[in-house]
Amino acid sequence: MNQLVLASRSQTRQRLLTSAGVAFDVLPVQIDETSVKQSARQDGLDVTATALLLAELKAVQRIGCDDHLVLGADQILECDGAWFDKPADRAEARKHLLTLRGRTHRLVTAAVIIQGGARVWQHVDVPVVTIRAFSDRFLDWYLDTMGAGVLGSVGAYQVEGLGLQLMAEVRGDMFSIMGLPLLPLLDFLRERGVVPA
Amino acid sequence: MNQLVLASRSQTRQRLLTSAGVAFDVLPVQIDETSVKQSARQDGLDVTATALLLAELKAVQRIGCDDHLVLGADQILECDGAWFDKPADRAEARKHLLTLRGRTHRLVTAAVIIQGGARVWQHVDVPVVTIRAFSDRFLDWYLDTMGAGVLGSVGAYQVEGLGLQLMAEVRGDMFSIMGLPLLPLLDFLRERGVVPA
Repeated sequence: MNQLVLASRSQTRQRLLTSAGVAFDVLPVQIDETSVKQSARQDGLDVTATALLLAELKAVQRIGCDDHLVLGADQILECDGAWFDKPADRAEARKHLLTLRGRTHRLVTAAVIIQGGARVWQHVDVPVVTIRAFSDRFLDWYLDTMGAGVLGSVGAYQVEGLGLQLMAEVRGDMFSIMGLPLLPLLDFLRERGVVPA
Repeated sequence: MNQLVLASRSQTRQRLLTSAGVAFDVLPVQIDETSVKQSARQDGLDVTATALLLAELKAVQRIGCDDHLVLGADQILECDGAWFDKPADRAEARKHLLTLRGRTHRLVTAAVIIQGGARVWQHVDVPVVTIRAFSDRFLDWYLDTMGAGVLGSVGAYQVEGLGLQLMAEVRGDMFSIMGLPLLPLLDFLRERGVVPA
């Protein structure tokens, strides 16, 4: 088994690590993200603390062997104080995109590495995306074309795909927008000898 | 034939447009980039003007039907006043990367659209990349792993691949780093009805 373990079901995060030449194993986790977010919010945690908490909860679930570095990650979309979950169906994706239309939102992207029960690394990045004032006709076309593909991300888009056509402006790191702050992660993995220096 | 024509042999630019859902045809061009760059430099053109000139020369070569929008693009790597071409072989890629090691370089990325003999759109973006002080051993491993893949880009790297392991910091638009300023291009293509608004 590789030293790095990704505690995530996200295909995008797996693809990002693979493209960057990082060897890892995947141990997907199952946590009730919606109820964790609700409790966190009720407890007064802000969006950054909540994303870090979720990333850590995913990693902690997968502690088995103390030698492994277990990576958990989470991303919360925040727009004018509202937090968005991944849409459950097309109708919800449509609703999300109509809310985001013509506005700027933040993608609070957290990653945590746990080793032997302790948090040995963490990183939070907050790229910012402005959604353009697209037409209703565009939205129908977009949802038709994407199909189930809109359900895989908090914003109902993939910046590396058709989602770019939703956007007026993108500020910040593209890897963080896709869900994993790869550059700081690679720094840490080099320190630990997981990737060559 | 599609309204948009890409005058480029670059696989990456084709992939970027396809991923973003843009329909286009490819008409690859053959120009002697090295001699154009040399003349441009001798004539006192700066790196931005030269990249724009190359992008336009590629597009102009492909003018046939006046209705088409012909897209040409070019990218010049500039580091402390030196301009880099794509490496011709592994030895040159090695030399380039040793020169870039521990330094910051600029990727001057130009795109031009020609219609009916006139330049109807242009954009220049200059993302900035800092290459980390990697070890000689890392460099050997990188060149072995990449093989001919290092010959496809001015920096001998792909930010969307193993090239990320060369980098300490990336500032600017990821699409421009890959060779095409996609967001401003999409804006123009929407104005012209090539992609839906």
